[in-house]
Amino acid sequence: MIRVTVWNEFIHEKRKENVAAVYPNGMHAVIADFLKSDEIEVRCATLDDEECGLTQEVLDNTDVLIWWGHTGHLLVPDDVVTRVKESVLKGMGFIGLHSAHHSKVFKALMGTSCNLGWREDGDLERIWTVNPAHPIAKGVGRYFELPHVETYAEPFGIPEPDEVVFIGWYEGGEVFRSGCTFHRGNGRIFYFQPGHESYPIFYDENVQKVIRNAVYWANPVLRDEALTCPHIEKIVK
Amino acid sequence: MIRVTVWNEFIHEKRKENVAAVYPNGMHAVIADFLKSDEIEVRCATLDDEECGLTQEVLDNTDVLIWWGHTGHLLVPDDVVTRVKESVLKGMGFIGLHSAHHSKVFKALMGTSCNLGWREDGDLERIWTVNPAHPIAKGVGRYFELPHVETYAEPFGIPEPDEVVFIGWYEGGEVFRSGCTFHRGNGRIFYFQPGHESYPIFYDENVQKVIRNAVYWANPVLRDEALTCPHIEKIVK
Amino acid sequence: MIRVTVWNEFIHEKRKENVAAVYPNGMHAVIADFLKSDEIEVRCATLDDEECGLTQEVLDNTDVLIWWGHTGHLLVPDDVVTRVKESVLKGMGFIGLHSAHHSKVFKALMGTSCNLGWREDGDLERIWTVNPAHPIAKGVGRYFELPHVETYAEPFGIPEPDEVVFIGWYEGGEVFRSGCTFHRGNGRIFYFQPGHESYPIFYDENVQKVIRNAVYWANPVLRDEALTCPHIEKIVK
Amino acid sequence: MIRVTVWNEFIHEKRKENVAAVYPNGMHAVIADFLKSDEIEVRCATLDDEECGLTQEVLDNTDVLIWWGHTGHLLVPDDVVTRVKESVLKGMGFIGLHSAHHSKVFKALMGTSCNLGWREDGDLERIWTVNPAHPIAKGVGRYFELPHVETYAEPFGIPEPDEVVFIGWYEGGEVFRSGCTFHRGNGRIFYFQPGHESYPIFYDENVQKVIRNAVYWANPVLRDEALTCPHIEKIVK
Repeated sequence: MIRVTVWNEFIHEKRKENVAAVYPNGMHAVIADFLKSDEIEVRCATLDDEECGLTQEVLDNTDVLIWWGHTGHLLVPDDVVTRVKESVLKGMGFIGLHSAHHSKVFKALMGTSCNLGWREDGDLERIWTVNPAHPIAKGVGRYFELPHVETYAEPFGIPEPDEVVFIGWYEGGEVFRSGCTFHRGNGRIFYFQPGHESYPIFYDENVQKVIRNAVYWANPVLRDEALTCPHIEKIVK
Repeated sequence: MIRVTVWNEFIHEKRKENVAAVYPNGMHAVIADFLKSDEIEVRCATLDDEECGLTQEVLDNTDVLIWWGHTGHLLVPDDVVTRVKESVLKGMGFIGLHSAHHSKVFKALMGTSCNLGWREDGDLERIWTVNPAHPIAKGVGRYFELPHVETYAEPFGIPEPDEVVFIGWYEGGEVFRSGCTFHRGNGRIFYFQPGHESYPIFYDENVQKVIRNAVYWANPVLRDEALTCPHIEKIVK
Repeated sequence: MIRVTVWNEFIHEKRKENVAAVYPNGMHAVIADFLKSDEIEVRCATLDDEECGLTQEVLDNTDVLIWWGHTGHLLVPDDVVTRVKESVLKGMGFIGLHSAHHSKVFKALMGTSCNLGWREDGDLERIWTVNPAHPIAKGVGRYFELPHVETYAEPFGIPEPDEVVFIGWYEGGEVFRSGCTFHRGNGRIFYFQPGHESYPIFYDENVQKVIRNAVYWANPVLRDEALTCPHIEKIVK
Repeated sequence: MIRVTVWNEFIHEKRKENVAAVYPNGMHAVIADFLKSDEIEVRCATLDDEECGLTQEVLDNTDVLIWWGHTGHLLVPDDVVTRVKESVLKGMGFIGLHSAHHSKVFKALMGTSCNLGWREDGDLERIWTVNPAHPIAKGVGRYFELPHVETYAEPFGIPEPDEVVFIGWYEGGEVFRSGCTFHRGNGRIFYFQPGHESYPIFYDENVQKVIRNAVYWANPVLRDEALTCPHIEKIVK
């Protein structure tokens, strides 16, 4: 059983009518819903929960953490950020969606600005599979389309990814590394561009397939290796 | 002084009127022309020259080899291919342009199919700089455009590049890793997508800038290290 | 069920008494033996078999090919090499052991010399886990030791690996990237340094663990994608 | 002219007699001394200086920052750390020496624990060149030795480096990726293992060669690109 926690700041859905219309119970509810299965168990956590719902106990019992944040990035307390980051280094998987590129956690794991260009005109995005044999691309085909998205543009201020799985094409003239993998410590990280709050992106079958694939891929191989800097003994006879 | 050899199969220019109209003396002549400077000395070589103009002596006196080939890939003899590949491994820089993705030399250096999708509709290509601090992107800006190109599409069958410098956007809906670096042995390799024979691409100022930058970047740090598998002596006291 | 084919040139075992003493039925027999399980089915193939035992049919029914070769590298026909390489690009996993670094197949997949330094003094090798959360390192610990090996030394003439999983330390003063991963096309490749024919290395529990882990890791995600360079249709409305 | 700032916490040299004996004026003085040339201008800064000697003005006029820290890591104020990190992302080169692996700046740039194993027995380190054509390895040869060092051991908790240039071998049985490159934003980063305070390592000719090479390599290609996340205009006609 893979234990997933879906974290959502859950702000836009409560404040903006157009977002509430698409995600009446929050994006996390939709994500949790399509992930749940015989092999995946899901809980949700939001900014309003005590300690953002991300206590040490929750993190210790989370195999893969999915993160959606935007307007509330700075409201996440630094000790929560540190705790999440340490959990990733110990092995917890982390999936950052869309505007999570600027979340404190993702930026702390990358060590860079994570900046990008953006434009909000409801462009079509065609997402090309660059690495067709990657487990995260399983079943997605040569490319798939999302009729309306927020446009993101290169340069994307990240370290060279371990693997670029998807590159997005936008009708307005931009490209973006829309699906990238990293590993940091024992933890596997996947960043995925789609997920703007005003469009029904998390209902899309291919988006769901990619996120589900990413959950399986990010499920830890090794957990809880102590984060220490050990003094070692001379080991040669 | 950087010694560049521009190799061109030089077939289309002699057979097709529309290509001859753009490149009356061959694409190599145009490339040689814009590269020549106080710091760069250029010679040309083509398929019709004896041994393709790529004798051991020529290669030993070439710092960076630029390659354009397409319809004549299979006409390049295998021993020339081996000689060029060995020169790259010893340190010679290699710049593959456009359809050189399918040249025997590039494929031998990559170890993969180097396949891609293609379409010839004269689309506009907008080339985005993904890695703005890379020496090859110097002076090019956030992006630049070519009004008419042959479209290339992902997935591009190459190993994970050392660095993706440019990603191309095509108006017809495709993306492509249009500028990629690799190193193989001591040699540095740059693949650059633009360069279709029927358009005046090598007259474009940004294309010229990129190729010139790539020549400086690929200029060998180390040459002529013997390609051996040495028996070594026990070296501890 | 993962279908493994273990290929061994099977020469030293028949010609050298000291090798026959360790591997009376060939190294492939020992490798096949420890791999066989409810989840892994194994066949063997050697240089003496018709077409090296690697017909198209065998390759089409092999998920992971394990390769041991040394003195017989040049006896493997080029068409067999091409067939194996194409199978890897289509998705078949490939595990190269020890002197397979110089096999035609591995060199063709790498595009480099694959040279290294070597010394045969029966040194102890201590193999350090550089990437403890990598599936191939599962259960191996911080390091493990082999009392007697053939020493390999850097520089190892390979492209930058996707991941360095293990680095070897030799008592005589050398280091070597002893466990490296690559992907080429759809196929996953693991190179593993241990495996000299005169020592009982393939009986070692940790070596067996690593090779078994590598089989699971290299099991294809995607197979038989046509190796084509498709003409594509303009796909924007 | 390349403008280098050598930062040293400058604590051990003032407190420990054995260190003072080796570096009476501090390690920074020795490093500054061997770097100074017609092409390199050097200033020093230490923990005792106001704002650690790393004001915005100093950083804006530094092309490459060299960092030595150990016992005083936590004494570097967070705003200095942030300022240095931002400067690297904008293009300033950064060279971390020895125990700088645990400096706040390096850890913030890596996003990982940067942990490692260690042992202080005055072992010999033999540093192997893994990537002989890398500019940082210029003139160093196949390997070089330091008679007495502090031992560092894998696993080293860093992201997969862009390039591994050197791997260290220690007589007591350990290996370590002793020379690694990264880029973060516009800035180039080199981490180099040698540099323990109680041994005369910075007087070693090869160590000096490597650090000098690294200064040339890390000299910025692009500076002062604003660290912004721009709203872009629809750019297609």
